[in-house]
Order: sequence, then structure tokens, then C-alpha cells
Amino acid sequence: MTSEEKEARLEKMRHSAAHVMAEAVQSLFPETKFGIGPAIEDGFYYDFELPQALVADDLPVIEAKMKEIIAADVPFVREEMDKAKARQLFSTQHYKLELIEELPDEIVTIYRQGSFIDLCRGPHVNSTGDIKAFKLTNIAGAYWRGDEKHPMLQRIYGVAFETEPELEDYLARLAEAGKRDHRKLGKELDLFSLHDEAGPGLVHWHPKGVLVRQIIEDFWKEEHRKRGYDIVCTPHIAKVNLWKTSGHWDFYRENLYSPMDVEGQEYIIKPMNCLGHILIYKTQLRSYRSLPLRYAELGTVYRYERSGVLHGLARVRGFTQDDAHIFCRPDQLEAEIVGVVQLARFMMDTFGFYDYELLLSTRPEKYAGTIQAWEEATESLRKVLEDLKLDYRIDPGEGVFYGPKIDIKLRDALGRLWQGPTIQVDFNLPQRFDVNYVGDDGSEHRVIMVHRTVLGSMERFMACLIEHYAGAFPVWLSPVQAVVIPVADRHLDYAHQLAVELRGESIRVQVDDRSERMNLKIREAQLGKVPYMIVVGDRELATSAVSLRLRSAEDLGSQSLSEFKNRVKSIIEDKTSDKL
Amino acid sequence: MTSEEKEARLEKMRHSAAHVMAEAVQSLFPETKFGIGPAIEDGFYYDFELPQALVADDLPVIEAKMKEIIAADVPFVREEMDKAKARQLFSTQHYKLELIEELPDEIVTIYRQGSFIDLCRGPHVNSTGDIKAFKLTNIAGAYWRGDEKHPMLQRIYGVAFETEPELEDYLARLAEAGKRDHRKLGKELDLFSLHDEAGPGLVHWHPKGVLVRQIIEDFWKEEHRKRGYDIVCTPHIAKVNLWKTSGHWDFYRENLYSPMDVEGQEYIIKPMNCLGHILIYKTQLRSYRSLPLRYAELGTVYRYERSGVLHGLARVRGFTQDDAHIFCRPDQLEAEIVGVVQLARFMMDTFGFYDYELLLSTRPEKYAGTIQAWEEATESLRKVLEDLKLDYRIDPGEGVFYGPKIDIKLRDALGRLWQGPTIQVDFNLPQRFDVNYVGDDGSEHRVIMVHRTVLGSMERFMACLIEHYAGAFPVWLSPVQAVVIPVADRHLDYAHQLAVELRGESIRVQVDDRSERMNLKIREAQLGKVPYMIVVGDRELATSAVSLRLRSAEDLGSQSLSEFKNRVKSIIEDKTSDKL
Repeated sequence: MTSEEKEARLEKMRHSAAHVMAEAVQSLFPETKFGIGPAIEDGFYYDFELPQALVADDLPVIEAKMKEIIAADVPFVREEMDKAKARQLFSTQHYKLELIEELPDEIVTIYRQGSFIDLCRGPHVNSTGDIKAFKLTNIAGAYWRGDEKHPMLQRIYGVAFETEPELEDYLARLAEAGKRDHRKLGKELDLFSLHDEAGPGLVHWHPKGVLVRQIIEDFWKEEHRKRGYDIVCTPHIAKVNLWKTSGHWDFYRENLYSPMDVEGQEYIIKPMNCLGHILIYKTQLRSYRSLPLRYAELGTVYRYERSGVLHGLARVRGFTQDDAHIFCRPDQLEAEIVGVVQLARFMMDTFGFYDYELLLSTRPEKYAGTIQAWEEATESLRKVLEDLKLDYRIDPGEGVFYGPKIDIKLRDALGRLWQGPTIQVDFNLPQRFDVNYVGDDGSEHRVIMVHRTVLGSMERFMACLIEHYAGAFPVWLSPVQAVVIPVADRHLDYAHQLAVELRGESIRVQVDDRSERMNLKIREAQLGKVPYMIVVGDRELATSAVSLRLRSAEDLGSQSLSEFKNRVKSIIEDKTSDKL
Repeated sequence: MTSEEKEARLEKMRHSAAHVMAEAVQSLFPETKFGIGPAIEDGFYYDFELPQALVADDLPVIEAKMKEIIAADVPFVREEMDKAKARQLFSTQHYKLELIEELPDEIVTIYRQGSFIDLCRGPHVNSTGDIKAFKLTNIAGAYWRGDEKHPMLQRIYGVAFETEPELEDYLARLAEAGKRDHRKLGKELDLFSLHDEAGPGLVHWHPKGVLVRQIIEDFWKEEHRKRGYDIVCTPHIAKVNLWKTSGHWDFYRENLYSPMDVEGQEYIIKPMNCLGHILIYKTQLRSYRSLPLRYAELGTVYRYERSGVLHGLARVRGFTQDDAHIFCRPDQLEAEIVGVVQLARFMMDTFGFYDYELLLSTRPEKYAGTIQAWEEATESLRKVLEDLKLDYRIDPGEGVFYGPKIDIKLRDALGRLWQGPTIQVDFNLPQRFDVNYVGDDGSEHRVIMVHRTVLGSMERFMACLIEHYAGAFPVWLSPVQAVVIPVADRHLDYAHQLAVELRGESIRVQVDDRSERMNLKIREAQLGKVPYMIVVGDRELATSAVSLRLRSAEDLGSQSLSEFKNRVKSIIEDKTSDKL
């Protein structure tokens, strides 16, 4: 089977499992009204109107019933009928009646297994026995048709796989993902918070979160300057007319915030940084010799997202893009793309992501620019990926309207993909804003613009980092790198003296000088994912040594302070973890 | 005479000079309609409706006429009359008639000198001969009563002093100020730009401006962390309800931008950072032992200012405050204020401002909190200033409604004052947001909040720095610290090799490898205020030396590379300039 065939079979099985779950629920609660029950990624759900609120303990009961139905190996039977007959069949099911009304054809299809009948286009597996490993995972509220003006139904989620080991593997990863959830760890590690009072999707970074972010940003700035980028900084609001000229007002209206009025002019909060960079570019006449110009900005932008899709740091309403715009001549495009791909790979490697997927997205139906320009640019992108011997997939027609792009998705420690770097060629903005350079022929030529990020946004990248490392950041990124733990009060002076010495080497150290038990302090430092715990007692004081433990709980025993310093400094230098 | 008496006398003289200028203009253009003509700082102006547009060449003619009137030593005569008579007297002067209507009393005063009569409350000097050194400086358009719906009048500005040397000194400083104007230098040095397309008062920072700003910000962060501040980062928009709770919606409405709608909720772009810091504080129960907490943020805020008052970087609509909020117990307030004052002085010293004025502003008529709390806090501020033996003035009733404050104004190289650090005690927000800590008695107590900035805003501070140094920043702040200038093409390799070596020492170096004449390159580097020019020719190549020039044009001759490196590194370390 090809992977597409496998996927299609899994989807059929998951959809069939939804029907079996519905039958099981019906047998337990005969008065159930049924909403819809589709297959989704990894599993399925079904929405029910029930006489009582379900609790987690109900799930095993429903599962047991499902297993009976599966064991009975009842066939799924497809049947066509006219709407009149269907209305009769579902006369007690008002949600189904509503769906029947909306179907375009007079003939509708239903599926039966045993006594259960559902309005359904299919397809399904042959019989219930074809449903292999499954598990019900949770219960949630869901408005009928996702509309809060409609009744709230109860949704049961399940997962289903071909084999038990696959299911177990999935559930193990799910449990691990739960432990790594950046929303949970973000709170435990005191990295950030979100506040309904201020508005959902707006991140408040706490001191430790800012520290990690600043380390990343400082590193990012340094690497960009090294590679010939110039850093700029542009305001968060601008006249809406700029966004009308750019086309964003028409193309991205639903993601823009409503305008504010200033002296009779409409302003909006910026959804992207490009226009400010264009204004800076245009403050001077640029010669072909001064190109490429690479303007980078850690620019905070605001875009509207429905509150339903917001998710911790990963999907927010305000985020800081690690943005840059390259203004170059057509003959420089390929070299610039090479530079960006190499920078992106360097960044991902540095942060510990060694596995990623590359997508090259080509011309969509609606596009700006000429076909020739599209072909040349797409060819440049393709050539770069091939010259660099990178595996990539073509995503046909998925380019942005203004040009083709390369997207890179990072694979984290649990195998999940995260949206990472993006590199987009733009034919549209240089045209709309008349962005030119003076060629060696003395006349004006249109520049090519490249939009690119290498981390994506600070928010989503931080979410990804937290989950990838389960909060145990590599030492260079750890907000606190070491905690000194004195065994008793008489070791306090020595502890503080060590801290001063380590800080002198730019190591971020805290002294836990509370009058608590040593084991509690060690435990809390481990929970705080602090890489090094330095325990100092009588013996350490007498020998001017330190006793070292890692956050993995490994005890490295006694060593001299200089040994420890060298160890930490080399691990920081390498940007790795110490026996994570 | 006390300085207040001197000031009052100068103001009378300047106001009288305005009348004399009006008489001179009337004698040249008898059909002139007169607006108003007050004394202002350093001088005076008068608004005229004239039959023709004035040009700069008209000013000496008016000045000559004024000198005649002054030489004639005509007395100023005050006269009272009822409005009916005044209306008759000013029957051809419709602006004056408008003013007469608005005067509250039936009896009005006029002043005459010779044939010229003005509606005026006075006071004036005794006679025109009392007007000493003066000069007309420029002509500008000004709407009648500052309202763009009214006619545009012509305003002539003049300056006046007691003595010619004072006037000349003032004019020299004015010329110097013109040369140092940060708007002019900002463009010449390519530091920033403002764009009407994006909106007035919104700063676009160019690469070199960002570099200077980043050096300042990195230094600022480091010094704050050293002093126990935690850096946080909060979003630029928030629900308007937060600002209603805080009182800003009522007290600062005219400076807030209009709300944007998000899913039926109103949001505004933040005018200040305090509320985000309060939300972070409140994510945990804080114990008396964990205080003080000092949250610092380089937070960009947006406030509405009329377009007429916008001025380069000095008065803008969006600016980055070097903000911090200290949450402390009442018994910690004094020590915290000491810390802030010391930090502010350290910062000002570091940036080369050694002269400043301190103001302690006390309880205004409308205030939040109890009188006792005000008295205690004001006393704490006063005690700190006295313990630190600082000269200060009381500014009675000029505190913010939420608490007393200390303002520090920096004096720049031309003797002008700039708004600098501010330290404000706040009784209002902790009350409104119920911001508490758990005391050693186990019950909740209200914290005291201190708002403070030590630079003010990055924008205004940069304006001040540019004008203070006339663009020739101290070496540590210079975006380009050295330019290597090869005498001929055969010295290019050596030039680049030097640059690599200096960059290895974190010195910001450029190589001017254009095929231009050496003198032009030197001249351009000087205009760019680059501290060091390293000229390399045959002799330098042969001896592995460098030939050094300063931006002051001083030629320091030949020296070894290591001599130069040590020189620059020690100057950078000292945060000074090299023989500026």
C-alpha cells in the first residue's frame, strides 16, 4: 500500500469507529440526539445531545460496548433513498433533519450497522470487525455547527490505529506531549502568562521567559549582522493607506484589526513589518552596487485570530517575527536564497532541531507578476534546494499570491512538525511601492524582495523549544544555569562567594539560601529544570570544592571549582546540554 | 535683583518689544490687522494680517524702524476705558474686536506708545528706550488662535536681552543649536527617518540608529539586572476595560488612541506599561519576603500628540520608555528611591550629562490616596534628596494625581534643559487593581508602586544625545568606530586584514574601498563623525603600522596596530571620546 492508500484506509476505519461509538452511546442512552461524527487526525469524534453530562468514568463503559459491537463483526451497509424516506427514518433526530434539508441532491445515502443508522456519505470499512486498536480519549463541549448561538453538545474524542502497538505508542506520545505542554511548563517554570483581562492571545513574558528570549534574540542579531544583515526598527502603527497600497487591506482584511482614527486619518496596528522596511529603503536612491540590502527586525505584529484557535504561545494574536527583507537584483536572488537556507539550517541545528521537512510552493491560481518572473524565481528556489542536496516536496499552487516560497517544518523530539523558517519571493510590493535601484546602465530597475523568517516568531519558537526540551533547555538557554545549595547555615558565606565567582564568568547562578531542607531544594531545582545543582557542605568548604548534581538527578560527586567552571563554560560554548 | 525680578523685567521688555515691532510694521504697512503679540521664552512674537507675504529681507527694515522708535524713547502709557470706547478705538481691527468681546470686565486696558495703541493688560517698561538688545529671527505662518479653521496670519519672532553680549551669546548658541539639530544630523548620519505616508511622529530607525540604540539598551539591561531588576515584556494592545479600571481612560483620554474592536470587545494600543506589569505581579501570591520586585521593560507606548507639537525624535506619537515599576512595602520605599536616584545619576554621568536640575513635585488639588500617605511619601522623596545632598526645587502642587514625584532635567552642552529621569510614587493603581502582598502577620497589605524611567524614552534621549554631542558620539556609542582608508589599491588587502583583526576585538570597523581620492574619504568619514580614521599606505604596509587621524581632524601620525587597539579599547571601556 502507498502511504496515501494507508491514510485512506485509516480514515475509513476512524470514521467507522465514530459510528460504532454512536451505536454504543445509543444503546446506553436510547434518547440520544446525534450531531455529526467525522474522522480527524489520529482518530474521530461524535457530538451527542444526552440526558446527562458524561464524565471520564463513562468512557470505559462506552469502550466496552464498542468492543462488543466490534467483536460481533457486523457489516456496514450503504443504502440510497430519497429525502422523504430519510426524513421519516430520522424523524426523531432533529439535527439529522437539519442536515438532510441542506443536502443538494434529492437522493441521500445512509449507512447501517446492526440497529444503528446514520446519515452518511461514507465510505466505511466492510464491517465493524475491521476496526482495530482504538481508545476514547476525552469529552468536551462543542456547539452544534461550531456556533455559540446553537445548543452545546457533548463531544467524545477517540483515537484509532491499525495495531495495538501503534495505539500504545501514540498514547505514550500523547502522555509525553501532555507533560511537555508549553502552557503547563510555561506556568511551572514561570516563563509567561496570558490574561483574559488584557485579552486572549496576548503574551506577557515573565523575567525568566524574557531572559531565554533575550539570549535567543542576542544570538540572532549577532548571526544576522555577521551575515551582512542590517537591523532596523519600525513603528507598530501606520496609516491604513499604506496597507491599501500594499494590497494587504484587500487580501488579509479578516486578519487586520479595525482602524483607529488620528486627526481624521485611519491607522492600523501593523500585521507585518515589510512596509516600514520599504520606507527606509526608499529614503535614499540605491545603486546596484549597494545591493543586496538586508533589513532585519525583531518586529512585533498583531493579527486577528478567532479566540477558538488560540493556543498558548503557539497561536496568538500578537507575536514577534524574526523578520527580514532582502532587496536584491534578479541576478542576486539565487545567492541570497542560498544564504537564507544556510542561515535557517544553522539556526535550527544550533537549537537542536536536526530533522525537518522542506516544501517548495508554486504559483497559485490568483497571482501577481508575470508567469516568466514566477518561473524564474521558482526555478531559483528549486535550484538552491537541489544544489544544497536537500530533500524537498513540491506543494503545487500553494505559493503566496505575490511569489513562490520555501517553508521548512521542524520535527520536535516527539516527531511532531512545527512551522519553522519561511522564505518568500515577492514580485508584488516592489511593483506597488515602486521600489527600484539604479543599474549600471544609469536607469532605474525594479528590485526583487525576499521576505523571510528563520525562527518564525519568538512566541511559537519558544513553544516549540519548551516542548522539544520538555522545559529542560540547553545550558546556554537556561534562565538559571546553576543553583548553589548550602547544606547548613554555616555554608552560606561559601555559597555566596561561589556565586559571585561564577557570575564573574557570566554564569547565571542563584543561591538557595532559604532555611529549607537540602533535599527539598534539590527537588525544586530539578523541577525548575536548572542544569546544575552545586551542593556545598563541610567537606566542600574544607577542600574549596563543589559537589555537583545534574537536573537528570545524576550525582557527579566532588570536583574543584575550576573543573566545574571549565565544564559549564564548554557546554555553554557548545550550546548543548550536560548529559540531558 | 532676584532672578525672579530679573525674569519679570525681561518679560516686560520682551512684551514691550512686541509692541514696538507692531508699531514698526504699522508704519510700513498701514493697513495691517493685528492679532496678538506676547513675550515668550527668550523673546517675543506678533501675529499680523498683511497685504503681502514677508520675506527674510523685510526683517532688517522692520528692525531699523524699531531702532528709530527705541531711540526716540517714547513712553508706554496705560489707559482704562469701557468696552464701547475700546470698540470705537479698534473699529478697523477685527481681531482686536473679537478679543474685546471675550474680556470678562466692562473696563479694559490699552497701552499707547506714540501713535500705536494696543489692547493689552501690560505690564510694560516705562518707555521704548528701555528696550535693550534685540533681534528679529524669523517669520512663520500661524493660524489665528491656533485653529486651522481660522485665517493664517504671519508671525514675526524676535529675541531680546538686557545686553548686546547676552544677545550675541544667545544668537551664537542658536546657530550652534541649528547645526546640532537632531533632525538634520539624524538624516546626515542616516540614523532614523519619519514618513508622512506612515504617519507623523512615528520613528523608523535606520541600521546605524538601531546600533546606537541597541548599545544603550544592552547597557541599560545589564545595569538594571545588576541592580536587581527583572526584565519583562508585555503586549502593545489590551482591552480598554483595563484602562478604565486604572483611571487612565478618564484622566488621559485625550492622549489615548481610539479603540479597535475585537470580537465585540474594545482594545486600545497601550499608552503606558504599568498595567501589564501589574498583571504579571498578580500571577502569584507575593510574600513580604519576595519584595521589592522591580519589573523593567523597554516598552514601546503610543500616545496622541497634536501634529503641531511633534518635533523630530523629541516629541513623537510612539516611543520606547525605559520603564520600570517597583512593587515594595512602605518600609522599603525610601531605600528604593535612593536606588533609583543613584541609578539615574549613574546613567546620566555615563552618557556625559554632569549638570541637571531636580524638582520635587507635591500634592495637587485633585489627588488619589490619603493625605497621610502623600505626606509620608513626599517626606521620603525629600529625605532621599537631602541625604544624597542634592540641590532640588519644590514644585508645589505639580505631582501627578496618583502621588508625588521627582523629575530630573538634563542640561546639554548648549545649556538647554531636557526632560530626563522621573520617579513617581503611586497610591492609585495598587488600590484600583488590589495589588497586595502577604505580610509577616499572614494578612494582605497593599504594596506601594513606583513608576520610573532613567532615560525617559529612547527617542527623546537619542535626540538629546545627538544634540549634546553634535552627532559625534563617544566612541563606545559610535555606530562606526573606525574607517580604514587605503591610500591606493595596492593597500586594499592590508586594509581588509586590519579590519578583520580589529573586528576580532569587537571594534566596529569599515573599509572604505571605493576608488575615490583619499582626501574625499577622510572628509566623508569626518562628516560621518567616525571617531578614528586609519590611513594605510606604503609606509604603514612596510612597518605593519597604522596612520591615525581623529574626527576632530587631528593627525596622530603613525603607530603600531597594538598601540591603536589598546588606545581604542581603553576609550571604549571608559565610555568617553578621544580628544573630542
